[in-house]
Amino acid sequence: MVKKQEHEISLSSFRIQDSFWSYFQDLVKDTVIPYQEQILKDELPDVEKSHAIENFRIAAGESDGEYYGMVFQDSDVAKWLEAVAYSLALSPDPELEKRADDIIALIGRAQQEDGYLNTYFTVKEPEHRWQNLHDCHELYCAGHMIEAAVAYYEATGKRDLLDIMCRMADHIDHRFGKGKTRGVPGHEEIELALLRLYRATGEDRYLHLAQYFIDERGTEPDYFEEEEKNRGWHYWSTDGSNRNYAQNYAPVRKQDHAAGHSVRAVYLYTAMADLAGEIHDDALWQACLRLFDNTVNRQMYITGGIGSTVHGEAFTTDYDLPNDTIYAETCASIGLVFFARRMLELKPDRRFSDVMERALYNGVLSGMQHDGKRFFYVNPLEVIPGLSGQQQEYRHVLPKRPKWYACACCPPNIARLLTSLSVYAWGEAIHPKTTDADRTDTLYSHLYIGGTFTSKAGGGVTIKTETGYPWNGTVRYTVLPEQTTADFTLSVRIPEWCSAFSFSLNRNVLDQETLDIRDGYLYLNRSWKNGDLLELTLDLPVRRIYANPLVRENAGRVALMRGPLVYCLEQEDNGAQLQTIRIPKDAALSAFETTDPVLGSYTAVSVSGLRLIPDGSLYSERPAKAESVPLHAIPYYLWGNRSEGEMRVWISEN
Amino acid sequence: MVKKQEHEISLSSFRIQDSFWSYFQDLVKDTVIPYQEQILKDELPDVEKSHAIENFRIAAGESDGEYYGMVFQDSDVAKWLEAVAYSLALSPDPELEKRADDIIALIGRAQQEDGYLNTYFTVKEPEHRWQNLHDCHELYCAGHMIEAAVAYYEATGKRDLLDIMCRMADHIDHRFGKGKTRGVPGHEEIELALLRLYRATGEDRYLHLAQYFIDERGTEPDYFEEEEKNRGWHYWSTDGSNRNYAQNYAPVRKQDHAAGHSVRAVYLYTAMADLAGEIHDDALWQACLRLFDNTVNRQMYITGGIGSTVHGEAFTTDYDLPNDTIYAETCASIGLVFFARRMLELKPDRRFSDVMERALYNGVLSGMQHDGKRFFYVNPLEVIPGLSGQQQEYRHVLPKRPKWYACACCPPNIARLLTSLSVYAWGEAIHPKTTDADRTDTLYSHLYIGGTFTSKAGGGVTIKTETGYPWNGTVRYTVLPEQTTADFTLSVRIPEWCSAFSFSLNRNVLDQETLDIRDGYLYLNRSWKNGDLLELTLDLPVRRIYANPLVRENAGRVALMRGPLVYCLEQEDNGAQLQTIRIPKDAALSAFETTDPVLGSYTAVSVSGLRLIPDGSLYSERPAKAESVPLHAIPYYLWGNRSEGEMRVWISEN
Repeated sequence: MVKKQEHEISLSSFRIQDSFWSYFQDLVKDTVIPYQEQILKDELPDVEKSHAIENFRIAAGESDGEYYGMVFQDSDVAKWLEAVAYSLALSPDPELEKRADDIIALIGRAQQEDGYLNTYFTVKEPEHRWQNLHDCHELYCAGHMIEAAVAYYEATGKRDLLDIMCRMADHIDHRFGKGKTRGVPGHEEIELALLRLYRATGEDRYLHLAQYFIDERGTEPDYFEEEEKNRGWHYWSTDGSNRNYAQNYAPVRKQDHAAGHSVRAVYLYTAMADLAGEIHDDALWQACLRLFDNTVNRQMYITGGIGSTVHGEAFTTDYDLPNDTIYAETCASIGLVFFARRMLELKPDRRFSDVMERALYNGVLSGMQHDGKRFFYVNPLEVIPGLSGQQQEYRHVLPKRPKWYACACCPPNIARLLTSLSVYAWGEAIHPKTTDADRTDTLYSHLYIGGTFTSKAGGGVTIKTETGYPWNGTVRYTVLPEQTTADFTLSVRIPEWCSAFSFSLNRNVLDQETLDIRDGYLYLNRSWKNGDLLELTLDLPVRRIYANPLVRENAGRVALMRGPLVYCLEQEDNGAQLQTIRIPKDAALSAFETTDPVLGSYTAVSVSGLRLIPDGSLYSERPAKAESVPLHAIPYYLWGNRSEGEMRVWISEN
Repeated sequence: MVKKQEHEISLSSFRIQDSFWSYFQDLVKDTVIPYQEQILKDELPDVEKSHAIENFRIAAGESDGEYYGMVFQDSDVAKWLEAVAYSLALSPDPELEKRADDIIALIGRAQQEDGYLNTYFTVKEPEHRWQNLHDCHELYCAGHMIEAAVAYYEATGKRDLLDIMCRMADHIDHRFGKGKTRGVPGHEEIELALLRLYRATGEDRYLHLAQYFIDERGTEPDYFEEEEKNRGWHYWSTDGSNRNYAQNYAPVRKQDHAAGHSVRAVYLYTAMADLAGEIHDDALWQACLRLFDNTVNRQMYITGGIGSTVHGEAFTTDYDLPNDTIYAETCASIGLVFFARRMLELKPDRRFSDVMERALYNGVLSGMQHDGKRFFYVNPLEVIPGLSGQQQEYRHVLPKRPKWYACACCPPNIARLLTSLSVYAWGEAIHPKTTDADRTDTLYSHLYIGGTFTSKAGGGVTIKTETGYPWNGTVRYTVLPEQTTADFTLSVRIPEWCSAFSFSLNRNVLDQETLDIRDGYLYLNRSWKNGDLLELTLDLPVRRIYANPLVRENAGRVALMRGPLVYCLEQEDNGAQLQTIRIPKDAALSAFETTDPVLGSYTAVSVSGLRLIPDGSLYSERPAKAESVPLHAIPYYLWGNRSEGEMRVWISEN
């Protein structure tokens, strides 16, 4: 019977001090959060207008303006508040907290008597509440605000937003469910949020409501088709009969492949995995395993991007992974991290944490400019200026990050993920001594991130992690028990991509033969003493990666990776016409540290490649001649930070 | 000063009896023309409705129905009538001619008092005549009916349709021109038709009107922008400010690259080349050379397909030639044949005739099912069932030819081209002895097609051509003068793709050193005697063709050609997942004759290839293993005739 094997740690129990990630966490705290606050308050010129805070003022009757923005504009405020909560948990900031409290109070004033909260329908179409779940994102917005409420409560202890959102959740619970009005959310999010609310409040009805929404999806008669038939009006020109778009092609326990809008999909799967663990539902867990497997083994870009097409921002078919017309929304990679994290809870297995790491270091980070002020929605693996962003097929594939978007889901999503990174790094299984006297506590190190982790394991322990990862492969865990010793198992992931690694304990290399390694995790159970040092050394050669031959787009091509990082070629370093570049099969790949005024310090990859020289003919019996060229590859997440130009991940191999 | 160096022959002067082309001509006569007639008359079930003849009945006041179809539905009738005319010129058919006469009489009755002829505007919106030249195709429909009229007059001597269309042309001439109402056709066609009408009637005003339309395009202020401003209504949601779509980005003599809707473009260029020869306009000729060069050396598929994108059915940018999201409309390849033929008139040069041949044997013929009853609009170079025709990006790329189209421009266009093939095969330059006593007549063999060509050259001569081309490379020209001898030059193209050829005269091989070859044409001037036999032998190895490295899509790939034929792999012969196939660089390519119940007899290409074997992983450090597989390639024009499946022209090379 499936159950949670480990649990997310509390955010503040792991304080990150890391040579790689602290930059991003500081960037979010110092730059991204204030920058996004200004945008939400319409205080920045030359940026796509947000109006999100103003919409709450209008809904609260405190401003006479017109509603402006997407039907889900409220969620931008919610995701920003969630990021603020995580940031406050990491480092107190009374002024920021005061401004957040003010916004929370405003949200409270925008809430309706009956608990309903949604500025679009309050201001624009009160008569249309709850009638278009397929398009109108009321449950989605509620879900994001619930997540913010839980986060803010956990970070500050303040219940105001939590109470507001409990009233909204109760309003929803009052309306929807078995024996009540039927409903299925068009854009999943409420499900995973209700599960968080359930754990924060202990109220079973939120668990049951989450389960209702999950169970109802894809059942007959299809809710969305019924709704569309009865409704008679549209917000968008949607097609409720497309039973992939909103993952309603089958009841969730029967689903076997990732389909439809990719963000919706992974938000659903995240909730499914979470629910499976909460209610010990093996059928749901098996469905999650199938969906995870299909997603990452058939429909995922090497960067952890998912969603191959702009049309419906959706999954397409197995192995259809075009690099240039790609969608790979930042939010979808973020959602994949959520999904993988929930799967890890049910089974600590590197197949989940490896994916989490892949998405984080590549497809998520690429969504943000290195200065934190520009964002990608779409994360291509091949960019061609003159076509990308211009020609219809490629119009969504921008060669340069914009400052903001009319549909601004991705920027605050990155902010909340980076500020809550701690919960993805570690997991814990603490067993009450009274009932599980024979079981030891286990601490899982999923990601290699420097910092100080404090846990109740073994009666209380602090683990200090030091690493230069991902640039180098040494990770040092120093164990500091609260008492003389701490009996617990330290479990450390060994990534599948790593073919050579070693562990040492107090500087004595451990015999690989004797190691207890299961599902890619070392399990080291001992009575830890003060200062015990477990050191992991991962070999980090530059690796040539080949796509499955079923991926049409990558036939004859190779990608370069080092550790978890995907590399790419940019025009800035390698000239234009990157399709003329070939990497000979026997060319040596070398990694070296370098520093760039814009990109900062990073490890580059150099290789002696070939460049085909075009002649005048369009078609010829003579293969083009080639000249040797030095190639300089940079980590994918850093692309698009310098001049606008070509970029390519998959390079011809010769 | 540019002038016509040769002229199209009259259709009936070259009777085709050819092992390759007679099949298609008979197919058009026996199957395609009757089949299309039934469709135009709405007599076939299970076919996209045409209603084209019925529209004429309604316009003539002889039926009470509602207009149905595209705004240019009339042109389907026109192109069919043109094909009928050519067919009647090739072989009399009194019953067909009677039915055509009836339709022509109906067309006459649908013509308005003032000469105006267009069923859409006569029936639906008489108040909107001539107000939306950008979208509404009135001049386009007139142009096609003028072409039909000239063809029908030349084939049958009957003037009825010619008189009808002279009245329409006069109506147009009365309205548009310098000092009259300004106008530029949105879809070019009238220009080339008026030039044909000018030659058929000798009326200078048609030449001048053609020149007016050509000269006015792209001048300031832009006609289409003005029209849109003044009009206030739309037929389609068009964008008159897109100055590529209708080739109005510059005055035609300043244009330097093919742009916009590809069929419109080549119809314009055809007229420009024709006009340049008629009025000896060097600036226009230079523009034609630039446009031809850009089209065929930067924007043409290996099949002679043009137009890379479905969006606007248009050219995109140089070297942007995607194989799977391709457009390559059949009509565009047909238009490229027209353009190349007009260029040949101005300069007999194989760079034009090679392109004409490439398009004819590949991108044109692929537009029609081998049984003549299904047609492609889009001619892809890569088809993936499950995506092609389904997923949005590929929805226009059908894996199977439909029976008919709502927008049915291509099927009758193929019919009229195949029935008039004679004029593309031969050209003649006959010099009146009185004025050009010192110049010999010249007959140009542009295409290798068996048949009997009768010309006034050298006082009268018949040339009998026998060949098994394109399957074998021997072409025999037997000269039969009307008198004892005929003094003229026989000029025969030597394709650029042929690296080894020989000529023999009366079975004596001619010394290559002594041959007079200019611009890819042999010139053999002599006093021809009865039974003189010129034999050309072209070496026909299977050739590996590489695209310019600037073509992103074809990096690392090879295509196979033999003679003028492009080859492709189909799933039917080679299994699915054609992207896993590789042709080793050193693999021997062999051609062999074969017969298929559906495809008939053809020459296939076999090669021992490799097939990569997918394993379970999506990304791996191990390149996939490969197994040897025999590959069977068929001529591209035959693809899609058997089971529905994958097809691919550009194959990975290894």
